[in-house]
Amino acid sequence: MLIGKVVGTVVSTAKDEKMQSLRLMVVRPLTIDGQEGSGYVVAVDAVGSGVGEVVLYASGSSARQTVLTDKRPVDAVIMAIVDTWEVDGQERYRKDE
Amino acid sequence: MLIGKVVGTVVSTAKDEKMQSLRLMVVRPLTIDGQEGSGYVVAVDAVGSGVGEVVLYASGSSARQTVLTDKRPVDAVIMAIVDTWEVDGQERYRKDE
Amino acid sequence: MLIGKVVGTVVSTAKDEKMQSLRLMVVRPLTIDGQEGSGYVVAVDAVGSGVGEVVLYASGSSARQTVLTDKRPVDAVIMAIVDTWEVDGQERYRKDE
Amino acid sequence: MLIGKVVGTVVSTAKDEKMQSLRLMVVRPLTIDGQEGSGYVVAVDAVGSGVGEVVLYASGSSARQTVLTDKRPVDAVIMAIVDTWEVDGQERYRKDE
Amino acid sequence: MLIGKVVGTVVSTAKDEKMQSLRLMVVRPLTIDGQEGSGYVVAVDAVGSGVGEVVLYASGSSARQTVLTDKRPVDAVIMAIVDTWEVDGQERYRKDE
Repeated sequence: MLIGKVVGTVVSTAKDEKMQSLRLMVVRPLTIDGQEGSGYVVAVDAVGSGVGEVVLYASGSSARQTVLTDKRPVDAVIMAIVDTWEVDGQERYRKDE
Repeated sequence: MLIGKVVGTVVSTAKDEKMQSLRLMVVRPLTIDGQEGSGYVVAVDAVGSGVGEVVLYASGSSARQTVLTDKRPVDAVIMAIVDTWEVDGQERYRKDE
Repeated sequence: MLIGKVVGTVVSTAKDEKMQSLRLMVVRPLTIDGQEGSGYVVAVDAVGSGVGEVVLYASGSSARQTVLTDKRPVDAVIMAIVDTWEVDGQERYRKDE
Repeated sequence: MLIGKVVGTVVSTAKDEKMQSLRLMVVRPLTIDGQEGSGYVVAVDAVGSGVGEVVLYASGSSARQTVLTDKRPVDAVIMAIVDTWEVDGQERYRKDE
Repeated sequence: MLIGKVVGTVVSTAKDEKMQSLRLMVVRPLTIDGQEGSGYVVAVDAVGSGVGEVVLYASGSSARQTVLTDKRPVDAVIMAIVDTWEVDGQERYRKDE
């Protein structure tokens, strides 16, 4: 899994029937320093995340293991919202309450 | 998933029996700025997309989760046509009606 | 999938029992401009391709979806020989008849 | 699989139900010279590893093959703690007893 | 699949129960020119390979398709020892008898 920041959304009406009722988020991966990295992935939201939140996302076939994404043609899923993230004894991020 | 632009097609007559009746599209991934990135992927079209359209595509085993691609030897599928795409509060793309 | 050119072969006698009777081809991926790219992959031939031919190959679990490669420990398969390939309205390649 | 060093942890309370009771570790891959490489992955700990330890981790669908991670939406798992690691006849690492 | 050279080994005693009785080899991928490339992967040996040998290895879920690795949390397997490898009509490698 990687840690990312939700930075946007994708809207589609013409789509495969198995893509119905999924929220598509644009996620920027964060570097180990907590900075926004390059690149992005479009991931299905399985935990009610919103733009601006720091999340954990899984890729590949593992993205189909949530109840929401089971057997769907999706290769990335947000399955956790990050509370805190610590590297080398230093807090990289803490979610505001 | 990634967002891409359909830029071409591939035609093949000598192919595995499980590849019959599939439309093969050349897709260029778009960067998070909405520009055409480097590289490409050949993806099966599962939503009636055409050259010039901005689409969403899935890779890996997830590409076999549409009805059309089930159990086929394909590792990329176009399963949605993008209407709008927004990043950091700015619209990156809007499909012409 | 990616488009590649078959440039060589690999021969092995000491191999897993599930690797019997498979032709192993060295494939160079082609860039979107139709040039030989860097890198290579060793792919199982499922369509009778030969050295010098331009082919389509699939990677990952999708490589096991042909009848030939079912349940085999192979992660790349050539499952189509390319007739024509067109990008941005220009023909990148046409197979000689 | 790759060899990595556990350098941190991730905590999440709002998560998919299938993510309950998993320890999430931040792992830096090590280079073949035994140095900390760039990048990171968040992996589920399946062997009781701790921060500072050198471990082996698997990615993709293989990350779901431990009893702990079966059918969970996780794409990386720590499934072994490294005792020794040898390359070109030289010991890269030996775990302190 | 890729061609690699076995350059080392990894030893672990604290590991997931499904990792028992597997030999873990450090494999350097070879470039298409037959040189040792950068990077490495730790792969399970399914064919009795040894340090110094040139082998073929598969990655991802395909690495679990040998009898030895079935349902194990491993994402790379050595499933063939290379006898000869030819590119552009030139022999890149021939195993010494």
